Amino acid sequence: MLSRPPSAKSRQRTVPAAPCVLVTGFEAFGDDPSGQGLNPSALAAQALHGQVIAGHPVVAAVLPCVFGRSVAVLKALLKQHQPSWVLCTGQAGGRAGISLERVAINLDDANLPDNAGCMVVNQPVVARGPAAYFSTLPLQAMLGALQRAGLPCELSSSAGHFVCNHVFYALMHQLRKSPVRGGFVHVPYLPQQAAGTGRPSMALQEITQGLHVALQAALDEPSLQTLS
Amino acid sequence: MLSRPPSAKSRQRTVPAAPCVLVTGFEAFGDDPSGQGLNPSALAAQALHGQVIAGHPVVAAVLPCVFGRSVAVLKALLKQHQPSWVLCTGQAGGRAGISLERVAINLDDANLPDNAGCMVVNQPVVARGPAAYFSTLPLQAMLGALQRAGLPCELSSSAGHFVCNHVFYALMHQLRKSPVRGGFVHVPYLPQQAAGTGRPSMALQEITQGLHVALQAALDEPSLQTLS
Amino acid sequence: MLSRPPSAKSRQRTVPAAPCVLVTGFEAFGDDPSGQGLNPSALAAQALHGQVIAGHPVVAAVLPCVFGRSVAVLKALLKQHQPSWVLCTGQAGGRAGISLERVAINLDDANLPDNAGCMVVNQPVVARGPAAYFSTLPLQAMLGALQRAGLPCELSSSAGHFVCNHVFYALMHQLRKSPVRGGFVHVPYLPQQAAGTGRPSMALQEITQGLHVALQAALDEPSLQTLS
Amino acid sequence: MLSRPPSAKSRQRTVPAAPCVLVTGFEAFGDDPSGQGLNPSALAAQALHGQVIAGHPVVAAVLPCVFGRSVAVLKALLKQHQPSWVLCTGQAGGRAGISLERVAINLDDANLPDNAGCMVVNQPVVARGPAAYFSTLPLQAMLGALQRAGLPCELSSSAGHFVCNHVFYALMHQLRKSPVRGGFVHVPYLPQQAAGTGRPSMALQEITQGLHVALQAALDEPSLQTLS
Repeated sequence: MLSRPPSAKSRQRTVPAAPCVLVTGFEAFGDDPSGQGLNPSALAAQALHGQVIAGHPVVAAVLPCVFGRSVAVLKALLKQHQPSWVLCTGQAGGRAGISLERVAINLDDANLPDNAGCMVVNQPVVARGPAAYFSTLPLQAMLGALQRAGLPCELSSSAGHFVCNHVFYALMHQLRKSPVRGGFVHVPYLPQQAAGTGRPSMALQEITQGLHVALQAALDEPSLQTLS
Repeated sequence: MLSRPPSAKSRQRTVPAAPCVLVTGFEAFGDDPSGQGLNPSALAAQALHGQVIAGHPVVAAVLPCVFGRSVAVLKALLKQHQPSWVLCTGQAGGRAGISLERVAINLDDANLPDNAGCMVVNQPVVARGPAAYFSTLPLQAMLGALQRAGLPCELSSSAGHFVCNHVFYALMHQLRKSPVRGGFVHVPYLPQQAAGTGRPSMALQEITQGLHVALQAALDEPSLQTLS
Repeated sequence: MLSRPPSAKSRQRTVPAAPCVLVTGFEAFGDDPSGQGLNPSALAAQALHGQVIAGHPVVAAVLPCVFGRSVAVLKALLKQHQPSWVLCTGQAGGRAGISLERVAINLDDANLPDNAGCMVVNQPVVARGPAAYFSTLPLQAMLGALQRAGLPCELSSSAGHFVCNHVFYALMHQLRKSPVRGGFVHVPYLPQQAAGTGRPSMALQEITQGLHVALQAALDEPSLQTLS
Repeated sequence: MLSRPPSAKSRQRTVPAAPCVLVTGFEAFGDDPSGQGLNPSALAAQALHGQVIAGHPVVAAVLPCVFGRSVAVLKALLKQHQPSWVLCTGQAGGRAGISLERVAINLDDANLPDNAGCMVVNQPVVARGPAAYFSTLPLQAMLGALQRAGLPCELSSSAGHFVCNHVFYALMHQLRKSPVRGGFVHVPYLPQQAAGTGRPSMALQEITQGLHVALQAALDEPSLQTLS
């Protein structure tokens, strides 16, 4: 977990600071083929920590790759930082570009154990929750900005059934009656993870740039501008 | 085509310079999905131009993506620069890593026109030439070095049937009785080319690093050291 | 549209017939690479028409590949045949096996025109409908039966955003307060469609067998047995 | 190994029989993901055994999936049956169609052990043999016939580096001064092998039909007609 962002200091001033953007990544998990304990989502989130995008300071945090506990940590972060935007990110090995997830499904159905050794199969994320939530991020604006930046990107309609979708669904459930906007983005393997697998990869610099470009586009979206 | 490398000046000294390494890339062609006239092989070759690897200066050049003419330009470069090593490179859209080509086939069989509008179908590269030549680069050493550098890479057994294989075969035919070692490497799309295609890509910095690492490994290979 | 199934005659007997299983396929559309006007889903549905599975006669129908009209036809079929089970099927070019769809999304977002020339982009299937519905078919039992039959199969979490998902969502919305169970299955290209594309295919006989095996497993599922 | 074909009887007649077509497949090996000991190439070859194509009886045989021994068995078959055409076939898991191999490489480089437990790495098939041989089958005519039959098919420029390429190279080396024509064809997984892998498959009936169609086209090719 990271310490408070540089912008925290500005809260002591008379002009109230803009609310922050919370960006989360995940710790490494069993799907890291390099076995080096890498997860590009955590590295990219950390690289954005403390930056200011469209006037909003970025607060980054790394979530445990564990069903249940990841959501508890996320809820604590929401409470602590009171962000006006939330972007959760995770690693999608095998995808070639930055994937803007459209929809979170109320389904945990792992095919490998989480980092606590637990393999949740065919369970709802939230009992009696609705089947799905859509992302409330302005995905079309984010996609356009990524395309203009020449970065491989796509809309995706499935965030899978592992801890990524679990956190995405729990986030959207938590925000369901809130004006705070949130969503989830998957990023490819790093080159050093993909080496030897024949699978696509993206350099950390481009992943970080991609998240920055997408956040900039989201926060600049006039119709969705939050009041500060 | 690039001007003479910086090392040319050193030839005025009394100690003769080590022979150069010739690295070629290709100009953009119809397989560039970005339509921006990009070819990562040319950009990476140019980035290596003038560097000194294991004591050998790199001379880079860009070949036309044209059957026949590409080989004429290559032969002129061989004559002009008298390299002791030759690495030809090209773009292989859809591959995820740096591909060390094992074998050049005596077959031109294009499925798109070259940059002169010619689509050569089912013809030999060299009439009455042998069916194939193996690369004479130390591919296992190069592959190992790329793996240690954490770069996606692979051995490949087909350089296709377009101008890449055409140049590769012609190079090996030209070198068949020579101590000069040569071969071919394919590189992936750049991110800005792959954007919107769903296909893998690699950042230019990593492609360039990969060619450097592979050349370093080749030139360091003791059993293959050329006499200068 | 097909005529009534052979079992209709049995309704004249004193013992009431079991309610039917409605199986729909789609007419050919722009994604048929063979240009021969093929759609394996329609052919397989028609091959099942009139068969009796676990005591239930199969009624097959072919839906138009048109946003809106496809749903109107489906609703008329539901009203006419009063099925106790509904299996809608469609073609998913590029998939290698029979795909049991888990979830229908409230999103139409076509990237090619439907058969009426209309390309619906980024619209809900049902205005103010929930984000998604889960299939109410016993997918795990169906998957197990397909695996035991040695047929390539998988669970899928995205039915896309074209007319297939449109019909799937509309079906589940229609059945949301009904005891009738329903869902959607995607099938691969036929060999003659895949020829020349490099994409996977499945013979019609196996597709038809797969739908039969999956329906048999669904209708045999004791906990879900419908009352006849 | 199979017994003599039905056509053997005709050799007792005064009119000499046409020379046979030798078709080989491979026994199952470690790449069979079903673990059921299947290899579609052997099953398809056996299904063709005894058929007469363009006047030539088919003799089928199954080769061991063992470096060295496979070639010894092939040579014995060539000596025993004196075929005028030889089609060796093997399984290429992951390919979606019937692959007509263009070129055999003088390279054994296995990444799994053969059925004798031996994993040959980076060795020539024939010491001091040429780098490669082209197939001498009329591949364009065969490809056209497969396309007209609506069967997924492709030309391939790499038969890999396992026992398939080993046999292919050894065959072409054996035939290099002979009028007998030969080549190699790879076939996809069977559906029951691909189940659970997400990889493409082809029904045995279509694989067998494909080999028949391709052989028919080869034997009908006027310019290549053998004298009987």
